[in-house]
Amino acid sequence: MNLILLEPNEVGDDGGVRLSDGRADHIVTVLGAVPGDTVRIGVIDGPRGVATVQARAEGTVDLRCAFEAETPPRPRVDLLLAVPRPKVMRRLWAQLAAMGVGRIVLTNAERVERPYFDTHVLRPETYRPLLVEGLQQVRDTRLPLVSIHRRFKVLVEDDLDALVGPGLRLIADPAAPRSAGDVVREQAPARILLAIGPEGGWNAYERDLLAAHRFHAVGMGPRALRTDTASVALLALVHDALARLQP
Amino acid sequence: MNLILLEPNEVGDDGGVRLSDGRADHIVTVLGAVPGDTVRIGVIDGPRGVATVQARAEGTVDLRCAFEAETPPRPRVDLLLAVPRPKVMRRLWAQLAAMGVGRIVLTNAERVERPYFDTHVLRPETYRPLLVEGLQQVRDTRLPLVSIHRRFKVLVEDDLDALVGPGLRLIADPAAPRSAGDVVREQAPARILLAIGPEGGWNAYERDLLAAHRFHAVGMGPRALRTDTASVALLALVHDALARLQP
Repeated sequence: MNLILLEPNEVGDDGGVRLSDGRADHIVTVLGAVPGDTVRIGVIDGPRGVATVQARAEGTVDLRCAFEAETPPRPRVDLLLAVPRPKVMRRLWAQLAAMGVGRIVLTNAERVERPYFDTHVLRPETYRPLLVEGLQQVRDTRLPLVSIHRRFKVLVEDDLDALVGPGLRLIADPAAPRSAGDVVREQAPARILLAIGPEGGWNAYERDLLAAHRFHAVGMGPRALRTDTASVALLALVHDALARLQP
Repeated sequence: MNLILLEPNEVGDDGGVRLSDGRADHIVTVLGAVPGDTVRIGVIDGPRGVATVQARAEGTVDLRCAFEAETPPRPRVDLLLAVPRPKVMRRLWAQLAAMGVGRIVLTNAERVERPYFDTHVLRPETYRPLLVEGLQQVRDTRLPLVSIHRRFKVLVEDDLDALVGPGLRLIADPAAPRSAGDVVREQAPARILLAIGPEGGWNAYERDLLAAHRFHAVGMGPRALRTDTASVALLALVHDALARLQP
């Protein structure tokens, strides 16, 4: 935990916060902070800052926060992800937040098994703490927006434009000759939507529908990676290419 | 399992193999292969090929293999990794093999906790099946070589040259201004050794020793990723940059 994230409603008008959960434990036992010490804090979807420890009592820590003027920008990459196995999805939440994703759009596909939608890893009470964990690791405050779509066609044809807005759309395809980096450098987009298919790949209908909705196929060599590995690898390539567009 | 890996000593001179473990189950229950069908196979550190199912009996599958002439090349990237928490290391083995790593050099560092060395995740009987799982996912046969070094200074000063040979050496450092891709493009190396530090980072002595032994610091933006996420992200960037050096 390199930054302690606070909910907006936890911070008083005077910047005062009283913590009494795992974050208080972290401040006391891991950071060993005593009154007068400062710790790095941030508000979810708000600014980062520094908090001074005011007092420690059993299980409780009182902080006084001072925030930066600016809120970190929302990450410029969104993810359209065919729901993977629950075990893989569980591992992925924190990693996606750490890599930097503005919006996570989870979708059905032919090769997504139906029970995947009914597991607790797709419930906010499960995934929100995992996303927060990922943000705290990398000192970000921007909680990815999450939506879950059981009807692929309706999502792609009707809902996607409103969800993610304009930007470059990429679909990962081991067979594609061009790399994500090449396409990003050529198009110099403001935002990117990256689509990653199920373990067995998109079927032909799904690929065609995505291609008809402006998704460019980009490859990563012949290795068909597992969803979690592929997501991290492609987000790294796309973020790196975006970062190097800037002057 | 996109490829079934065989041990060299499992294959008879005539290409015959009898399987009676999880691989036989996979052929029968997942692939549903019957006599006459073919499945993708490979020999660890040997060629890939195709096997024809000869016979199925309870729990046993007989195959006849035909191999390609060439063995896949060893991945051009090696990893020097400060031993992470056992839970993280366990998750990492298959992902490293899937991303493609020639050699995994595990080392001590000040911020590596001593008990990390004594866990079963660093024992070959634990990690070898996980590496094989990663190779099978991506249809590679090249098992990463693994060595474990408790003395960082001895490793860097005395042993590293013999272990990994010549090549570009990179050290991940969130503060470094240059990206891995930039340095790879500039130096156009035949091989790369990528160093990834412990969760708390290398200490000053360790960084200086690595710098004195030809490691160039490369950054990935301000996000200090967890070891497993950082390893996958940096391997993706380095492999991508290497792939684009070729004509």
